[in-house]
Amino acid sequence: MIKIGGNVIDNDDAFKSFLADFAAIPYKKILVHGGGKIATEIGKKLGVTSTYVDGRRVTDAETIDLVTMVYGGLINKKAVALLQSFGCNAIGLTGADGNLLPAEKRPVSDVDFGWVGDPVTERIPLSMWTNLINEGLIPVMAPLTHDGFGNILNTNADTIAATIAKALVTEFDTSLIYCFEKKGILEDVENDNSYIRELSEATYLKLKNENRLFAGILPKLKNAFEAKAAAVSNVVIGHSSALQLLINKEAGTII
Amino acid sequence: MIKIGGNVIDNDDAFKSFLADFAAIPYKKILVHGGGKIATEIGKKLGVTSTYVDGRRVTDAETIDLVTMVYGGLINKKAVALLQSFGCNAIGLTGADGNLLPAEKRPVSDVDFGWVGDPVTERIPLSMWTNLINEGLIPVMAPLTHDGFGNILNTNADTIAATIAKALVTEFDTSLIYCFEKKGILEDVENDNSYIRELSEATYLKLKNENRLFAGILPKLKNAFEAKAAAVSNVVIGHSSALQLLINKEAGTII
Repeated sequence: MIKIGGNVIDNDDAFKSFLADFAAIPYKKILVHGGGKIATEIGKKLGVTSTYVDGRRVTDAETIDLVTMVYGGLINKKAVALLQSFGCNAIGLTGADGNLLPAEKRPVSDVDFGWVGDPVTERIPLSMWTNLINEGLIPVMAPLTHDGFGNILNTNADTIAATIAKALVTEFDTSLIYCFEKKGILEDVENDNSYIRELSEATYLKLKNENRLFAGILPKLKNAFEAKAAAVSNVVIGHSSALQLLINKEAGTII
Repeated sequence: MIKIGGNVIDNDDAFKSFLADFAAIPYKKILVHGGGKIATEIGKKLGVTSTYVDGRRVTDAETIDLVTMVYGGLINKKAVALLQSFGCNAIGLTGADGNLLPAEKRPVSDVDFGWVGDPVTERIPLSMWTNLINEGLIPVMAPLTHDGFGNILNTNADTIAATIAKALVTEFDTSLIYCFEKKGILEDVENDNSYIRELSEATYLKLKNENRLFAGILPKLKNAFEAKAAAVSNVVIGHSSALQLLINKEAGTII
């Protein structure tokens, strides 16, 4: 299970090169991609303005249509067409397709985040996943799920990758590789070379308590440790340009 | 094989009602959807202007991105989410996904139509189609294919429906139903009730030679007669609100 982050997707050459590396992986595989800034750019042109509550974006009706177009259409299908050109039999999917990742709209408490969903692990159709993978298809997932009531939901791509990886451990020996624009988890956020080679849960909690991890990395690490605890064999976080090295645990931060 | 036209998709209530009827069909089934005006509207806001040569739209780089977003993302995934809510295990696809409909970029002769593709029937992966269908998945196809070199291609939805229906006749007893906003093929284009109940190829050619068929219907009829000639059992053209009647050959124009 490979997750590729939005910052890499925004760079055409880096994304294409990453997809070529992904196509070359000689194992059964799944790709989950994030969003990237292109949705914001297209949204700006369309007059879709983002609302934020406590620094978190609210997914209103216009925004879910926007990300359905951009994540589920533009980014996903371009990635699939490129992977096909690299000889990889990719199939572009959201959680709505084949009901592969059922989710629930996040309950409204203090804040209504709108059309945002959290996957419901118990309802994942495991035999459907197994059949697709065993047929030689390579699922390419956009960060979208659905609520079963006809609504598409915006869903964190890190969470999607971890959730499906955890579900598949009963069927496959599963690894989870988070690829982004850093070499790993940085001990010093100002120094790109200060990445931690092996990160234990104790060190993670220590760094977190000392506020030494930048905010954006926290949900990724939470997902990573949960996956590790749920019997995902290898969990590695590192640079998208080093995919094969990350799989071999020869680069990146090993969880 | 059911094809639903763009004019129906433009009307939210009509489209939703059609999808509910589609979900209720008790046979193995595939849906192909057209585009609709929403791509033009969104394109206008994005500053994508359409170029026409001899009245036919040219699909330039901006336009293929636009239709990839709108057809492959917005329309396709909304349809899938709605079908899921109606208990139909839909899976949204383009011809690039699983390489299900390989195509070739239309050769440049007098006119370069840009990123437009024609399906290559011989390269359709029949066993992949059969496996998806026999697993209980309901393919929902956007009018997009790919060239195998990393490019998405704009492809006529009527042609996609006929091409796949013809390919599947060796595996299934196949029907092809074209649904649109008319009751059938009209003998008098001014009179919505003048639809022809049974259309023979001789009558079709006679009406065509007398210029009594409106231009937009000609490619649909060409596809319809080719499908009939290729052993598709039933080919019916009619109103989207009468889906079950069309399947029963109790409404519409029977080819």
